[in-house]
Amino acid sequence: MALEDLTVLDLTRVLAGPFCTMMLADMGAQVIKIEVPDGGDDTRTYPPFRENVNGERESLYFANINRNKKGITLNLKAPEGKEVFRRLVKKADVVIENYRPGVMDKLGLGYDALKEINPGIIYAAISGFGCYGPYSARPGYDILAQAMGGMMAITGAKGGDPTRAGSALGDMLGGLHGAIGILAAVHARSLTGKGQRVDISLMDCVIAATENTALKYLESGKLPPRMGNRYAAVSPYDAFQCKDGKVIIAAGNQRLYEKLCNEILHRPDMITDPRFVDMSGRLENQDAIQEVIEETLREYTTTEATELLLGKGIPAGPILDVSQILEDPHVKEREMFVELTHPTLGDMTVNGCAVKLMDTKPSVRTPAPALGGDNEAVLGSLLGMTKEELERLREAKVI
Amino acid sequence: MALEDLTVLDLTRVLAGPFCTMMLADMGAQVIKIEVPDGGDDTRTYPPFRENVNGERESLYFANINRNKKGITLNLKAPEGKEVFRRLVKKADVVIENYRPGVMDKLGLGYDALKEINPGIIYAAISGFGCYGPYSARPGYDILAQAMGGMMAITGAKGGDPTRAGSALGDMLGGLHGAIGILAAVHARSLTGKGQRVDISLMDCVIAATENTALKYLESGKLPPRMGNRYAAVSPYDAFQCKDGKVIIAAGNQRLYEKLCNEILHRPDMITDPRFVDMSGRLENQDAIQEVIEETLREYTTTEATELLLGKGIPAGPILDVSQILEDPHVKEREMFVELTHPTLGDMTVNGCAVKLMDTKPSVRTPAPALGGDNEAVLGSLLGMTKEELERLREAKVI
Repeated sequence: MALEDLTVLDLTRVLAGPFCTMMLADMGAQVIKIEVPDGGDDTRTYPPFRENVNGERESLYFANINRNKKGITLNLKAPEGKEVFRRLVKKADVVIENYRPGVMDKLGLGYDALKEINPGIIYAAISGFGCYGPYSARPGYDILAQAMGGMMAITGAKGGDPTRAGSALGDMLGGLHGAIGILAAVHARSLTGKGQRVDISLMDCVIAATENTALKYLESGKLPPRMGNRYAAVSPYDAFQCKDGKVIIAAGNQRLYEKLCNEILHRPDMITDPRFVDMSGRLENQDAIQEVIEETLREYTTTEATELLLGKGIPAGPILDVSQILEDPHVKEREMFVELTHPTLGDMTVNGCAVKLMDTKPSVRTPAPALGGDNEAVLGSLLGMTKEELERLREAKVI
Repeated sequence: MALEDLTVLDLTRVLAGPFCTMMLADMGAQVIKIEVPDGGDDTRTYPPFRENVNGERESLYFANINRNKKGITLNLKAPEGKEVFRRLVKKADVVIENYRPGVMDKLGLGYDALKEINPGIIYAAISGFGCYGPYSARPGYDILAQAMGGMMAITGAKGGDPTRAGSALGDMLGGLHGAIGILAAVHARSLTGKGQRVDISLMDCVIAATENTALKYLESGKLPPRMGNRYAAVSPYDAFQCKDGKVIIAAGNQRLYEKLCNEILHRPDMITDPRFVDMSGRLENQDAIQEVIEETLREYTTTEATELLLGKGIPAGPILDVSQILEDPHVKEREMFVELTHPTLGDMTVNGCAVKLMDTKPSVRTPAPALGGDNEAVLGSLLGMTKEELERLREAKVI
């Protein structure tokens, strides 16, 4: 597997960090998830739940995002817990955490301390605002990143309120940037022999994902309006009403617009109509074009409309909900959902990995760990701890 | 710089691919952008524009996302163009393209052909639906990925229409996954000596970014509703009306909810009120809680409310628009926008890089290339071509 020689000590909780290490684990890295002995990752108590084989309520959220990882417990506040962690750092390539900046330093386990133990260690931190800058000490959450990173201000219906993307997009973007940073630092280490710190701010990541928004504002002096599914520079490129729902049409250039007018709308006059003759005209008169398109499409279902449009070479597609996505033949062949048998939850569906390495395919191999479920295996094999030592640490509540 | 030893042949156009190679270039990779001699990347004609020093309309869109790259022209349909490309592949680590699947094979330049020339080559393709699966031949665009990947179905106001994220999010997610795949494949090559193909589908990437949506649906049998800025599992965690706009409050656990009731709302009764006593109650009675919060907040501006809430340790923040983000002191210190002097556009602002490698900082060093601007430098230094050869290729419209 692509990352099979990498050992990652994973102190992250909830979503952004665990999503990052999930991708690394899917690609073969040995990810050792380190949880507090008392309860572990908060998401062990997050919905959706299922009654497990022991008749207890167990989280599928945790089970999804922590598959392929090993799980150990460690109390980093206890001196012996710190010592065990330091011994693990000597054996590891990457440490990743998503505490608020400063927490690891206060524990005596910040990057400056860890690089003394292992100069090759790569130390990645994912936080709401990063480890430097005036907001770095603020608490960071997905909704704040979406709001302060500018995504909310440009998302929403025309004339409507600022709206977040419907998933925890800030966390997802943080996890993706974290994986890039870690892999780039691993590569840099192959050149220099030295590790380094990787600092990821959810707010930064959302700003990056707003792409040209700032440029457009700086040149025009106008704040970009929210505009539903329309785009600022191309039209017709939107969702259009059919008999039973909406279909997307992306006719973003002259050739595709002419095809649409000739072969779908049967309105060649719309090509020469001065209102629609070029893109800027079409952008100014979107409502009028929409009316004509929807007049035609009202005779078709979204499935029929999609087929009709694609048959004529016009980019089109349905707006799929998750029930349709789960049944979609393309999604199945792409293995974007994978079946897994979990020891206490039974058969469950987990997300697949979107990074398709064709010769070293990412895969879902093992279920998420029970709390401390790999204490013996990991601490025994990596640190050579005996059963007696482990028992003593367990009694002292260090693991 | 982290990736300074990597040479990337970049055949990508428009956004997803160029965003991917922008990140690699920001981290030091030598990215050689290869454009068709006749006009180059489509985005050279995309707004926003500025009148350049020659009095021509020039694209800032192109200039933003292609900084740090070298630019050469090459006609891959001409036999001599193919031959120059093959010679470059021998010297390169990565080829990346975002044609529709099959285009490169038809040119005789697909992965199977290129790995014969250089078994170490990493071949990354970013397309709407990936290189396998029943939709792989369909045209792919950002709006289709957002619609078919399930993001649109879960984004939007309560009771409102499916809504896209306001940026080209599918393209951004494709670029991020592409960078992860390339760096993972580079690492795998360090273990095996062999390159491989990396296949990225925008639709896959959007599905991945919907995180637990499928799990929730599978367990509940209920399609997730659109719900504006609310989240399914935590409350109060939303945007709330102040005197002059909205403020985000993320009081996602019992402790923060109690703090909010005691220290901001001065309503300790709301902690013991049976409607709000636990998270499931608060989720069911969000409107009632919102009313109380907004009654209090109406006396404050969003700035005042943010300070008040953060002062009491409650996660909060404003909804920033791009004009505010550009002026924000935190964003400035994080260098999420960078000033650059472009030879024909003059001083301009470009996006910074969100992957903060602390010892090998990503940076913006050189402006985007003119069309074929580095033909002599690249083809001369990498392939040892003479001025005469270059002149001949230029006359033959190969470059």
